[in-house]
Amino acid sequence: MIDKLVEQIQEKNAPVVVGLDPMLSYVPEEIQKKSFAEYGETLEGAADAIWQFNKGIIDAVYDLVPAVKPQIAMYEQYGVPGMAAFEKTVSYCKKQGLLVIGDIKRGDIGSTSAAYAVAHLGKVQVGSKVYEPFGEDFATVNPYLGTDGIEPFLKVCRENDKGIFVLVKTSNPSSGELQDKEVEGSTVYEHVADKVRAWGQTCMGTVYSNVGAVVGATYPEVGKVLRKAMPQSFLLVPGYGAQGGKAEDLAAYFNPDGQGAIINSSRGIICAYTKEAYKQFGPEHYADASRQAVLDMVEDINKYRPKA
Amino acid sequence: MIDKLVEQIQEKNAPVVVGLDPMLSYVPEEIQKKSFAEYGETLEGAADAIWQFNKGIIDAVYDLVPAVKPQIAMYEQYGVPGMAAFEKTVSYCKKQGLLVIGDIKRGDIGSTSAAYAVAHLGKVQVGSKVYEPFGEDFATVNPYLGTDGIEPFLKVCRENDKGIFVLVKTSNPSSGELQDKEVEGSTVYEHVADKVRAWGQTCMGTVYSNVGAVVGATYPEVGKVLRKAMPQSFLLVPGYGAQGGKAEDLAAYFNPDGQGAIINSSRGIICAYTKEAYKQFGPEHYADASRQAVLDMVEDINKYRPKA
Repeated sequence: MIDKLVEQIQEKNAPVVVGLDPMLSYVPEEIQKKSFAEYGETLEGAADAIWQFNKGIIDAVYDLVPAVKPQIAMYEQYGVPGMAAFEKTVSYCKKQGLLVIGDIKRGDIGSTSAAYAVAHLGKVQVGSKVYEPFGEDFATVNPYLGTDGIEPFLKVCRENDKGIFVLVKTSNPSSGELQDKEVEGSTVYEHVADKVRAWGQTCMGTVYSNVGAVVGATYPEVGKVLRKAMPQSFLLVPGYGAQGGKAEDLAAYFNPDGQGAIINSSRGIICAYTKEAYKQFGPEHYADASRQAVLDMVEDINKYRPKA
Repeated sequence: MIDKLVEQIQEKNAPVVVGLDPMLSYVPEEIQKKSFAEYGETLEGAADAIWQFNKGIIDAVYDLVPAVKPQIAMYEQYGVPGMAAFEKTVSYCKKQGLLVIGDIKRGDIGSTSAAYAVAHLGKVQVGSKVYEPFGEDFATVNPYLGTDGIEPFLKVCRENDKGIFVLVKTSNPSSGELQDKEVEGSTVYEHVADKVRAWGQTCMGTVYSNVGAVVGATYPEVGKVLRKAMPQSFLLVPGYGAQGGKAEDLAAYFNPDGQGAIINSSRGIICAYTKEAYKQFGPEHYADASRQAVLDMVEDINKYRPKA
């Protein structure tokens, strides 16, 4: 699956992923009203509103970017109907030719991780039939439980040609509390990076591994270190834009050939119509605002990205 | 909420939680057949089968134990219908007077953790209405992202009188890879325990905090250390039975008054009818086998538990 991501990035010349992390409050009022008229002010109504919102954005950007990254928490907060909206979003994105990175940050003991891996990247047997429950192409995974919590994901990745991104250094302010701690002469995040490299060897694509790493845009010095520590791991980089990461700092997240990283923006894209820079589009053209924000972001990232 | 757990444990004299972690393969064939007859061999059929299976067990044990712990991964693997079965299970358990610990092991950056907290312990606003999406009483939480990933859970716990259990030392074989690493003269798990104690201070019940810790039964030496490190944190202890934890080793997980810990068993209870010791019940009386397994487990744990 990582080969497809590399190919799509090259084809679209855009190492950019759009984070589909909708809150009801991001959805233009007209869309909310329509959904509430059909389903009432219910979880179904909320789920329909975020799905309609997503659909508009997907239709406006699918030709510009290789992938989207729906954050499952944003759907989970609307309960079962929210999960249905997540599934619908994943499936529609795939139909539109986008790769889907499920930002699920799951991770548990072996038998439980196996169930998560099946849920998001694999297939489940029901009697004589087989189903793909949520059907993402990639998933983010938490490493706190160690190798036996990761291995079931690797197995499912190998069997179904899928990929994972393991949390190594996250973009949030207190990520350092645990991740930066010194361990045996290096740091926790470097220690996890070593594991990612080892796990990655068991699940290689052509150049990159199907085991990538999440490395926040907000710690560029760490990004530089981790790029070198995991040369064959693709970096999924959150934190650009709303969280403060800058394109000039992101050059070091790429390999010298300009490959090896994909930068995420969520609110910066999906809420573009609420920002000063794109206000002229107005809420009724929110999707066009998102499209323009993607174009601007791609230009910004490519300006500093190493040339092949 | 922790006060209610303490009270329920005392009332039922059972520091035991039943892990509702159903796989379709655990469900007696007759139940599967009935669900497939109604819904076909579909995700809906699988979800109905695990829900019927759960219901039988809940009805057979609800008077014996204070709480259940459904593992959400087991439901997630059956997609959206599986999530509906999770929600139905949570809601039915609460109706039967059981406390529900959602074993969800979520954790993310602040704004995303807030969405998870709302999903599982809080309420979500939809227009003028308010809903409880999944409605558990407690949730397990992953600490890899640090304080700002935990704080939204604390906030929701304070607002809604709910609780969390933070992963400190998990029960699986490779938990030590990261959790046992030496950090500033102690270990990663002790470092996380310090955080749990600090977070717990902001969310106290009468004696114990609403911020507890997950500490695996499979590492009794660590359990002893962590019991002392977090005297006011309730320990949620997985790994008894199927994973190898023994009752005699669990004495040290309790405080001297016999309180402060709750021991989980999942497969040992819900799959009891498949074990040699309970085979005589037969698949048609699987729930009675589970009841007997609970009675035996409570006796086993209480034999070694410190007396008040």
